[in-house]
Amino acid sequence: MEKQWAVGVDLGGTKIEAAAISEEGEVLEKARTPTNVEGGAEAIVQQISDLSKELMDKVDGRPIGLGVGVAGQIDPKSGTVLSAPNLHWDHFPFKEKLEESLSLLTKITNDVKAAALGEALFGAAKGADTVVCVFIGTGIGGGIVEKGHLIDGASNVAGEVGHMRIRESGIPCSCGHLGCWESYGGGWAIAAHAQEALTLKKESLMLHLADGVVERVTAREVIEAFRQNDALASEVIRMAERSYIDGFINLTHTLNPDLFVIGGGIADALPELVSIIEQGVKEKVLPAAKANLSFKKTALTKDSGVVGAASLLFSK
Amino acid sequence: MEKQWAVGVDLGGTKIEAAAISEEGEVLEKARTPTNVEGGAEAIVQQISDLSKELMDKVDGRPIGLGVGVAGQIDPKSGTVLSAPNLHWDHFPFKEKLEESLSLLTKITNDVKAAALGEALFGAAKGADTVVCVFIGTGIGGGIVEKGHLIDGASNVAGEVGHMRIRESGIPCSCGHLGCWESYGGGWAIAAHAQEALTLKKESLMLHLADGVVERVTAREVIEAFRQNDALASEVIRMAERSYIDGFINLTHTLNPDLFVIGGGIADALPELVSIIEQGVKEKVLPAAKANLSFKKTALTKDSGVVGAASLLFSK
Repeated sequence: MEKQWAVGVDLGGTKIEAAAISEEGEVLEKARTPTNVEGGAEAIVQQISDLSKELMDKVDGRPIGLGVGVAGQIDPKSGTVLSAPNLHWDHFPFKEKLEESLSLLTKITNDVKAAALGEALFGAAKGADTVVCVFIGTGIGGGIVEKGHLIDGASNVAGEVGHMRIRESGIPCSCGHLGCWESYGGGWAIAAHAQEALTLKKESLMLHLADGVVERVTAREVIEAFRQNDALASEVIRMAERSYIDGFINLTHTLNPDLFVIGGGIADALPELVSIIEQGVKEKVLPAAKANLSFKKTALTKDSGVVGAASLLFSK
Repeated sequence: MEKQWAVGVDLGGTKIEAAAISEEGEVLEKARTPTNVEGGAEAIVQQISDLSKELMDKVDGRPIGLGVGVAGQIDPKSGTVLSAPNLHWDHFPFKEKLEESLSLLTKITNDVKAAALGEALFGAAKGADTVVCVFIGTGIGGGIVEKGHLIDGASNVAGEVGHMRIRESGIPCSCGHLGCWESYGGGWAIAAHAQEALTLKKESLMLHLADGVVERVTAREVIEAFRQNDALASEVIRMAERSYIDGFINLTHTLNPDLFVIGGGIADALPELVSIIEQGVKEKVLPAAKANLSFKKTALTKDSGVVGAASLLFSK
């Protein structure tokens, strides 16, 4: 019998990646194109349709459907993109338009949620029961997968864990409020805390790495200086680490997962984070909460977007 | 056609309450007895068996099963009570013994989780999709019900939300760590913070209400003094309120429920809490997270234990 497969599409502001993904999560074929943002939503529907047909020409059998991950806020039931700032979309009936164009069962969700589902079905969390994937990048976001299905919540915002309040004060978060996890541990916050520290104390390798310009210090320079034992950079990274431990403690007590999967740019740059977080969490959570608890790094790397999007079709 | 019904049992350290509960959540018949803790686990199995038979004699038709809520840590799959301090049980195969005794399908879980499921199926949350019930009493605990089924987590600890870390410091929590939600908002913490404040400043109605003995100040005296505008008591209650808002913000961003149900002794004594929490949360969460978000007081009152336990049999 032929293997079942689905089209997975990772729709970004600069490129569209599409792939034929087997029911085992293998990438069978790939296709990509620069995103025609200027052409508007209809032009992008056409691009996805063309890429899908290209894949359907190459792979035997008809796909069971099309899954799309979009950076934005999606209504998963109707498949409407409520907002996608980097595409300039506002309430676009994306699923409906794609189904008209391709006559394939289509599922759409937020790209972070799709990546979490991909890890749960085909990546680091294969076989786990309650999985929380947390991506620590510029911001902090994630997805909760319970027995193979994504928890969407009432308005598809479940997993916005970066806006848990873990402190009473701090620097203003991207959401405008104080004390969010992301405002201590997100890449933007690591940069902001470092810049703030540098305005008081100029002696730091971070500043050297940023050509002496405080405003040019990003998480990259902080991490590089931290690697070289710069004191100020280490303080900022330790603060972020404490925030990660607290965030994961909260998720442990709320959801009692059997597995955390940790990914994102900051986690990639600090591979020791997974064990630092695991140790810190296991020191502080209720004994019963760590009875069956593991921590892993994400397993899907460059194909996480397309595999995650296709996994929407393979989810229970 | 006869209505389906189930036996619901609320097993406490002082009494066992049993009831015949219809598939609509109505209490058809009730029975109760003091808990024979000294007799050991087997004696309690016999008591539950006797109460169940008493109900089966009174109600037409055979029950579809038996649900039991226990204050303790349960393995919901095997139905083993891992620990129940007020019953002095340790790894007792409760479900197995009850099924041997009664030949009824038996389901067992933690009493707080059972109460949450009862609210979801038959109480304030009837018809809601993603429900988080939070009980603010001596401690803070809850249950998450997603599309009619309880989220247990890997070791049945999901919903232990009182041990989310919302601060970096504070008084030691019952779990031994610092910064837990419960250590700011639980009844024991309200008392402890008040007592701490009273060691510094003796002028407070709280002290008068406790016959001048700092150690006798409980949450009850704090709330009574707060009602009479006592300054110190108000400070303690405001601190607790801020913690409630932060805890519910965290749950909103993690789970994006459509409904929070709030109950427990402190919530009963401060009925204004529900709207204070709602307003505080809605001020600070991501706009998308409050698009479909309501807050309600628990609806099941004196029968919440037995209805919750029986609801284990009616859950999807």
